[in-house]
Amino acid sequence: MTRQSFEQFIDEYRKKVDERLPLFIDNLNCPDALKEAMIYSLHAGGKRVRPLLLLSVIDSNRDIKESDFKAACALEMIHTYSLIHDDLPAMDNDDYRRGKPTNHKVFGEAVAILAGDGLLTRSFELISLMEDVSSETKIQLIRELSQASGAEGMVGGQVADLQAEGKSVSLEELEYIHQHKTGALMSFAVMAGAHLGNVTEDEKAQLRTFSQHLGLLFQIKDDILDVEGDSEEMGKAAGSDEGKNKSTYPRLLEMDGAKRKLHHHADMAIASLNSIRMDTTLLHGFVDYIMNRTN
Amino acid sequence: MTRQSFEQFIDEYRKKVDERLPLFIDNLNCPDALKEAMIYSLHAGGKRVRPLLLLSVIDSNRDIKESDFKAACALEMIHTYSLIHDDLPAMDNDDYRRGKPTNHKVFGEAVAILAGDGLLTRSFELISLMEDVSSETKIQLIRELSQASGAEGMVGGQVADLQAEGKSVSLEELEYIHQHKTGALMSFAVMAGAHLGNVTEDEKAQLRTFSQHLGLLFQIKDDILDVEGDSEEMGKAAGSDEGKNKSTYPRLLEMDGAKRKLHHHADMAIASLNSIRMDTTLLHGFVDYIMNRTN
Repeated sequence: MTRQSFEQFIDEYRKKVDERLPLFIDNLNCPDALKEAMIYSLHAGGKRVRPLLLLSVIDSNRDIKESDFKAACALEMIHTYSLIHDDLPAMDNDDYRRGKPTNHKVFGEAVAILAGDGLLTRSFELISLMEDVSSETKIQLIRELSQASGAEGMVGGQVADLQAEGKSVSLEELEYIHQHKTGALMSFAVMAGAHLGNVTEDEKAQLRTFSQHLGLLFQIKDDILDVEGDSEEMGKAAGSDEGKNKSTYPRLLEMDGAKRKLHHHADMAIASLNSIRMDTTLLHGFVDYIMNRTN
Repeated sequence: MTRQSFEQFIDEYRKKVDERLPLFIDNLNCPDALKEAMIYSLHAGGKRVRPLLLLSVIDSNRDIKESDFKAACALEMIHTYSLIHDDLPAMDNDDYRRGKPTNHKVFGEAVAILAGDGLLTRSFELISLMEDVSSETKIQLIRELSQASGAEGMVGGQVADLQAEGKSVSLEELEYIHQHKTGALMSFAVMAGAHLGNVTEDEKAQLRTFSQHLGLLFQIKDDILDVEGDSEEMGKAAGSDEGKNKSTYPRLLEMDGAKRKLHHHADMAIASLNSIRMDTTLLHGFVDYIMNRTN
């Protein structure tokens, strides 16, 4: 319940997440190469959107506790594992991510695959180890996280995305891909914050709607940045989706249509916050932040 | 608490596990290719040692319930995902397993990686969905499963195994590899059965010792079979570890020494059952079964 601005909150808690993430791996008793590979990708300087989203929902309801960082970091580990596996030669075959060589370029493919597996597994362990949280709530988090990140969520979206490569897909198919590949985990971030923050059932329903619009907003902005963004700021070449013949919102709807859709989802996300009684300063801030981000 | 022989128990429950495994994937709402790839490897005809071990510990204490199959199948899914990832070109590069083309040979590398990720994630979900089990017990199972299968367990053992390839390792290093790569999950099978079967703390300590000897027994037998086994029965070429320049017990200790070690761990496993009050018929049966298996 910090009464600080969105920017102050993000700066403060991004630092806290960045500090804690490697510690949750560093204390593991495992081969050095595996530990280094896991920490390398966690260090790779992401925006930490998912853990910050989770923490901001909690902070809208109660003070953030040390234990909450386990859930926040678990979520970032799932996201990081998915990037390591996505970058593999058999998948997107990317040599760089955020301006740094990808995991398999540094540690080799075998260790990269296993580092991803290790991060995925560690994330469930971290939730099981949360203090001051009932076992019922932990089981709910694990159930929802496995659904959001597994075959019915992120992994399923990734397969659909692979299958769509080089084909022209409908807007419906594109939304299926994004709702699963990125939307499900963004939704989980919001809902996990709601479960941990003891939000009422009515407010959870509103937050679920909010999270769905926010997820699409995030992805449409990503597609727009891929065309219009500054390569250096993004750490990858602008136009790289285009080059891979991937379907994107600007491709399907033209740039004007994509921007109209962006604003539509921003409006809907904000509208879903109106009937929520808790302080929504941080959540409003997230909508602006995603709309205006440059990388 | 069936009063049947070990062989009757194994036959009956292996069928039950075989029936249920694909059903836990078939009801998922996900792309067909992903579902087919996951089910393909679950169908690939393993011995189901881990789920049967889990169920046999439960059956030594109380009647097996439908819900127990969720834990048993979760364990087989973890084992199956590890085989899919192990077989990849970047890892062991195996084209066949148990006489069938490996997952990536049929579905391609990208889908194989994702099928493994999906199975790993689904296994945690299945435990979270168990009925008639307290949330405390489910969290204990998830914590122990993630430790047994993650960086401190199976995944760590796999990295150590990769690093040992082509090098001569000490007996200590070989035991580290096996205790992590296969032993940890075998131990989990026994301990999960103990937690679900409401075994006393004293008996759990005995079962933990039992499970550790059983895990090493299993691996030493595997190494011996790789040299002496019938290629057709095993579904892979005899001597294939030798060909890959992998360290094995027969290499380090000569065949005689490996067989002495096999009998030592069998004796120790049986000794640890002596002070257990519950019916240990099935657990004794497992020791004989692993000692005498031909594939």
